[in-house]
Amino acid sequence: MNLKEKIRTVPDWPKKGVMFRDITTLLQDSKAFHHVIEVLSERYKSRKPDVVAGIEARGFIFGGALAHELGCGFVPIRKKGKLPYKTSREEYALEYGTDVIEVHIDAIRPGQRVLLVDDLIATGGTALAACKLIEKLGGKIMECAFIIDLPDLGGRKKLLDAGYPVVTLVEFEGE
Amino acid sequence: MNLKEKIRTVPDWPKKGVMFRDITTLLQDSKAFHHVIEVLSERYKSRKPDVVAGIEARGFIFGGALAHELGCGFVPIRKKGKLPYKTSREEYALEYGTDVIEVHIDAIRPGQRVLLVDDLIATGGTALAACKLIEKLGGKIMECAFIIDLPDLGGRKKLLDAGYPVVTLVEFEGE
Repeated sequence: MNLKEKIRTVPDWPKKGVMFRDITTLLQDSKAFHHVIEVLSERYKSRKPDVVAGIEARGFIFGGALAHELGCGFVPIRKKGKLPYKTSREEYALEYGTDVIEVHIDAIRPGQRVLLVDDLIATGGTALAACKLIEKLGGKIMECAFIIDLPDLGGRKKLLDAGYPVVTLVEFEGE
Repeated sequence: MNLKEKIRTVPDWPKKGVMFRDITTLLQDSKAFHHVIEVLSERYKSRKPDVVAGIEARGFIFGGALAHELGCGFVPIRKKGKLPYKTSREEYALEYGTDVIEVHIDAIRPGQRVLLVDDLIATGGTALAACKLIEKLGGKIMECAFIIDLPDLGGRKKLLDAGYPVVTLVEFEGE
């Protein structure tokens, strides 16, 4: 299946000059969504993670489906102030300023193998912070899985350089 | 399975006096999460929806998993300003003021049967707005499915009174 043609490009969003890759057109296509989860679950069925961690908010859709398909638990990694219980947090740099992601301190047990899932990797700032957060709780990053890679922004390389395996399904390069 | 005991109660969150029902403890329990999706998919496998619509953000986790299990497409219903393409929007009342949810105008085709999913129904304001939004696009609400019902807050009744079927799995009453 050509997944790339299932993804809509919205020019100038969220700001002028950005070509936004809109995954909602893939999600609403039952065959395309099913295919994505099948491809990823095939990859992990012989070496299952203990939990799938998904990054808010689109990572919840793919991560939730994949966790269910693999029979794993699911851990939400959320933006600041969204989780009700005690959290561990990690700050990361944005273009201007910083942001914070959080996870419940008891969401992952030491030694658990964690598959990190999000829809897209751009600069990799959020994903790298999520990896550090998972490791703070004693989890081991098995792999980071993304549907879309924007290689020009270097996120995949950043994660690989930090020692985290990465898989992506679709690339949008220099477009 | 006793799902209720898988849900953690966090007192005084997000504000004094509220007993917050925290579903993350259920999600991270692989058997409990799997059980929830199995129960719901059993319910719909003989009368499948065309799409599952999930409400941001926890509705994405359950809705994504359920859409995959049923082989349906998934439609995200999001908070204001999060969707990149043209949207239809619906305003709804909060305790103080109003809020807005949005959906892409081409997310649902006229006549499609839509299963609405969220983790919890409280006053039902967001869910009712989501139903209206789906109908604006020509979708037909097949049912609204929630894991947790807080019957004291009347949301279930509000949806039923408006003609929308509702299913919930766990109740927290007067606690």
